[in-house]
Amino acid sequence: MVINDEFYMQLCLNEAWKYQALTYPNPPVGALILDKHGNILSIEAHQEARQAHAELNAAIQAVIKLGDTKITKLPSPGEKHSYLCENYQNYFQGCTIYVTLEPCMHHGSTPPCSILIKSLGFTKVVIGTLDPNPMAKGGKQYLIEQNHEVLSGILQKECKQLLYPFIKWQMNKNFVFFKLAKFQNGTITGKHVSSLESRKLVHKIRTKIDLLVIGGDTVRNDRPTLDCRLVDSQKVPDILIITSDDNLDREIPLFKVPNRKVYIKNDFKLLENYKHIMIEGGEGMFVKSRDIVDFYLFFTSPKTKTGKTIQIDANLKSLHCFKNSSDTITWLENIR
Amino acid sequence: MVINDEFYMQLCLNEAWKYQALTYPNPPVGALILDKHGNILSIEAHQEARQAHAELNAAIQAVIKLGDTKITKLPSPGEKHSYLCENYQNYFQGCTIYVTLEPCMHHGSTPPCSILIKSLGFTKVVIGTLDPNPMAKGGKQYLIEQNHEVLSGILQKECKQLLYPFIKWQMNKNFVFFKLAKFQNGTITGKHVSSLESRKLVHKIRTKIDLLVIGGDTVRNDRPTLDCRLVDSQKVPDILIITSDDNLDREIPLFKVPNRKVYIKNDFKLLENYKHIMIEGGEGMFVKSRDIVDFYLFFTSPKTKTGKTIQIDANLKSLHCFKNSSDTITWLENIR
Repeated sequence: MVINDEFYMQLCLNEAWKYQALTYPNPPVGALILDKHGNILSIEAHQEARQAHAELNAAIQAVIKLGDTKITKLPSPGEKHSYLCENYQNYFQGCTIYVTLEPCMHHGSTPPCSILIKSLGFTKVVIGTLDPNPMAKGGKQYLIEQNHEVLSGILQKECKQLLYPFIKWQMNKNFVFFKLAKFQNGTITGKHVSSLESRKLVHKIRTKIDLLVIGGDTVRNDRPTLDCRLVDSQKVPDILIITSDDNLDREIPLFKVPNRKVYIKNDFKLLENYKHIMIEGGEGMFVKSRDIVDFYLFFTSPKTKTGKTIQIDANLKSLHCFKNSSDTITWLENIR
Repeated sequence: MVINDEFYMQLCLNEAWKYQALTYPNPPVGALILDKHGNILSIEAHQEARQAHAELNAAIQAVIKLGDTKITKLPSPGEKHSYLCENYQNYFQGCTIYVTLEPCMHHGSTPPCSILIKSLGFTKVVIGTLDPNPMAKGGKQYLIEQNHEVLSGILQKECKQLLYPFIKWQMNKNFVFFKLAKFQNGTITGKHVSSLESRKLVHKIRTKIDLLVIGGDTVRNDRPTLDCRLVDSQKVPDILIITSDDNLDREIPLFKVPNRKVYIKNDFKLLENYKHIMIEGGEGMFVKSRDIVDFYLFFTSPKTKTGKTIQIDANLKSLHCFKNSSDTITWLENIR
């Protein structure tokens, strides 16, 4: 295996994909810091909006690894950013930072990452792909002007794939992904197909999406609640039930969850009003939604089970896979 | 993500799993070298029997990275081993080598890896699991006696899982794995379910196994050749066709491949005479072989397709998954 820029960028990608769908409205981003000898100090990702960006998380973990005990006590990303700029001015001379996305140049919940990289004095900055966000871009140009050695386009295709949902949001479009839990042989029926860890991740994703789409039959047969109880969150998405037949039992818990709207429609027009949308369902919903889905998110249990499978021809492209406790998680792109 | 011994051992494991089933009768092993500053010099694996062990491959790549151009010109692993011992005596002082399996202490196709590690002067040796092979073990004890800092048991469970086939061979038992190509929705029918890269890997595996088991219906319906043409190899495994009905067309190419025996039996007794056995088949063979299979090897295409799936309840455990071009490869353990 060749140990080069692509190798380190892949480690950034692996970390960032763990947070795909969780960072809305921000992009998932991974970052890695090498010290001046090439020793890995940290590999971190942006985990959720209003929290530290990947570069800041990587810098925080790097100074913790170097023995700093104070930084963990600071409450906000902004304070950690300031603390680093004040206490580690040019400390990272000779060091390299890898980041899947061009470091931001704007003040959001945190000050710009490009300023952080400049203050800490990183000699080399390796970027996967440039920022499509007109508000945040400009980091590469700024860092070149500040005399950093900047290399961009490393694993660019893979870094762009990671960024796909964000690119759609930036274009004021919605990002739609279809989540499916299945066994190794494709069976999708049965209670608790996925592990507890996988179901917790789904509940966490539900706290980040703004609309959850399901079919009428799922409501009638499974009588789900579709809340986020496994991660103890009160934040829940709105629900769109796709059905041509409005004979739904309004007394089930689904309709009683506070702070959300439940719509019952016969088409997907409502999706225009939302940005970050997950569809959960079986074969019927899979077929109905083929033309509007961007990504598929498959949770695959290691077991095989007798039962119903989805019988459809669909051309998908595998983007990333990783083990999540006992299950395998695969993100795929819908090739339309 | 915590950057520690487990992190580096996982990188060794990821590399080693790529060669699972290809190293017979040797174990798959991964190794990684950090220089004295913690910079990764190399991550390599043992790729096939009679070729360099993982530690030797890692040392070769490390000196190539450091600028050595001569070593690649040496033809055999033994000569490379000698060259390193002569030219890099104590050169790796301060450096660390990670290896999933205890470095060997015996002369096989190559001199002992423990001698190599001692000669090159690695300060620290981090071992995943100890060698179950009575002939090869003793490396850890030797390295401790030679005053190396030796740490063992890092990701021991995972390193043992990687080693499972080898442990069976050491006990003079056979290792049996079931290879299945499927689509994301479980469909197993259709021509070329897997990508060309995946089919090439299967042909390469066929050059390494000693027996390939298939069902009579596969022979009758698919009329396969079951050779290793995709990797241009003349080395082919013996074939066992499991069928209760001997009405097979002996004129198909399967029976014409040189240098192999073809058996037609109604049971698996013949497996006793073989050590490294792959089963290929569909639902019928999956059911028949449930009690004799150790591992499953699933090649999953990113697409979904209409067609037949395997309808069985089987308790499996996912060991490792990785992308192989467009497909996902998953190794699973049969929980019997």
